[in-house]
Amino acid sequence: MRYVGIDVGGTNLKAGLVDEEGRILEVERIPLVFRGPEQFAETVADLAVTVARKGGVAPESLEWVGMGLPGAVDGGDIRFITNIPMENVPLEKLFRQHLDRPLYLGNDADCAAVGEYFSGVGKGTKDFAVVTLGTGVGCGLILGGRLQGGPASSEAGHIVICHGGEPCNCGRRGCWERYASATALIGFTKKAMEAHPESALHEVAAANGGVEGRTAFLAAESGDEAALEVCRTYVEYLACGLNSLINVLRPEMVALGGGVAAAPEHLLLDPVRELVAKESFSSHGGRVTRVERAALGNDAGIIGAALLGKAL
Amino acid sequence: MRYVGIDVGGTNLKAGLVDEEGRILEVERIPLVFRGPEQFAETVADLAVTVARKGGVAPESLEWVGMGLPGAVDGGDIRFITNIPMENVPLEKLFRQHLDRPLYLGNDADCAAVGEYFSGVGKGTKDFAVVTLGTGVGCGLILGGRLQGGPASSEAGHIVICHGGEPCNCGRRGCWERYASATALIGFTKKAMEAHPESALHEVAAANGGVEGRTAFLAAESGDEAALEVCRTYVEYLACGLNSLINVLRPEMVALGGGVAAAPEHLLLDPVRELVAKESFSSHGGRVTRVERAALGNDAGIIGAALLGKAL
Repeated sequence: MRYVGIDVGGTNLKAGLVDEEGRILEVERIPLVFRGPEQFAETVADLAVTVARKGGVAPESLEWVGMGLPGAVDGGDIRFITNIPMENVPLEKLFRQHLDRPLYLGNDADCAAVGEYFSGVGKGTKDFAVVTLGTGVGCGLILGGRLQGGPASSEAGHIVICHGGEPCNCGRRGCWERYASATALIGFTKKAMEAHPESALHEVAAANGGVEGRTAFLAAESGDEAALEVCRTYVEYLACGLNSLINVLRPEMVALGGGVAAAPEHLLLDPVRELVAKESFSSHGGRVTRVERAALGNDAGIIGAALLGKAL
Repeated sequence: MRYVGIDVGGTNLKAGLVDEEGRILEVERIPLVFRGPEQFAETVADLAVTVARKGGVAPESLEWVGMGLPGAVDGGDIRFITNIPMENVPLEKLFRQHLDRPLYLGNDADCAAVGEYFSGVGKGTKDFAVVTLGTGVGCGLILGGRLQGGPASSEAGHIVICHGGEPCNCGRRGCWERYASATALIGFTKKAMEAHPESALHEVAAANGGVEGRTAFLAAESGDEAALEVCRTYVEYLACGLNSLINVLRPEMVALGGGVAAAPEHLLLDPVRELVAKESFSSHGGRVTRVERAALGNDAGIIGAALLGKAL
């Protein structure tokens, strides 16, 4: 069986022809140019046809096409999408006018969860979460082998960890993503640089053309105390929300994805695991939640979108 | 089909014979006297036999027996139980030596969720949560029609809403149940009474033999400003954790149970609903989470235990 997964990014549409094991057989990429929902549906259908044919697969014989996007979906409808002016668009209906195969839609974090569950680090679990650490904090949940997706998609980045804390775009104050996203980490790093002009953070930032999510971790590797303190603060907030998520759902595994998750294990995953062992209920009932790094990297979007139909 | 549900309380064992609609046909209650796991299993089996026969049902023809308890379970095993010295006891195995029917175990909040889902306010939903407001904050989750139970039982009372806040028995600081349980509400009430000797809280407390969870709501009904302020504070914290739970899972409905949930609707449920409409993501994706009062009251334990097998 063959599937096409399409990853809607900020500037590109990436499509992959994927087999049932989640292996990418062919890839096709085109720039994202938006000229209305109908044209978008046609472009997506054309892209699916192109990548299927490239891999020697007749488009009509595709099991389905899946699409991951930064936004909210409901069945084959797009509710909204952050980087394209589409709201409440019946995309599957428009798509089928060009390619009469099912079109499954999922948000980015849901696709990451599906990809990791079927072909990444989450294989073999039943209750599994992916938490993506990027501009915000995203979350995809697989519960009992099914995606908690569509209109029930998780927004775990918007659990409040600091009542009355930092204002969040969502309207709440003190949301987890205000403290545990890459954006938050960059903020902590900049503050530490102001307070510590002697810190190695300055050299690392200068060498890499500015402050990034990895700046503190890179400087901490050289033993810089201000950088180590930034890492500890970040880990503390990350683990705070993570333990809350774990206590709500008691999953077998949480995988961390997004750029920040690439940080050295002894500075990120190990201290997070210690805090999970210490603070979550997962230790009480005989089931300890494992914390791992997501395995699929940049391919997660395509693979997860392609396999969406398996988890619905 | 007939089921027996057994509710393990602090001082009593209550058993009910229950039909497939969740109606209680007969009840039997005995004092809880603990003399070891084997005797406990025998007592429970005897109780199930007694209540079945009382309703004219042959014990061997029971579909199953379910039991709800304050603690953690894993399949037919008790991991721990807060008021009885039993740990890691294979209760179903011991029980079957006396009555050879399946014994399903669930914790209290899980049973409340199952009961409300099949025969209370949660009927007709697919993703549903019960939050119980008592000594602590309990939570039972039904996701896609299945109980998130056993070793994956929710401990949503232990999501942190105030990073670095009040210490909790679980080892964390700032847990939701430190701010939204009946215990917390009583604490807020006592503080307000100290600060406001003129408040009607004093008379209400005196008339009812002490400060209770309902004290602030009773005094607020008469327009007492200190009492109204306690209610507002409590509602604010309750809604804070509720919105986090809702954002993680985006359920169709959350039902509030436990003594506090009996408070007047305009002082508790209505303002909570306003904060959910304002702060949760449930409004974004076209699916607004309803907040209702649990319907089964004291019978939830028996009914939920009896119907446990339907949700596993």
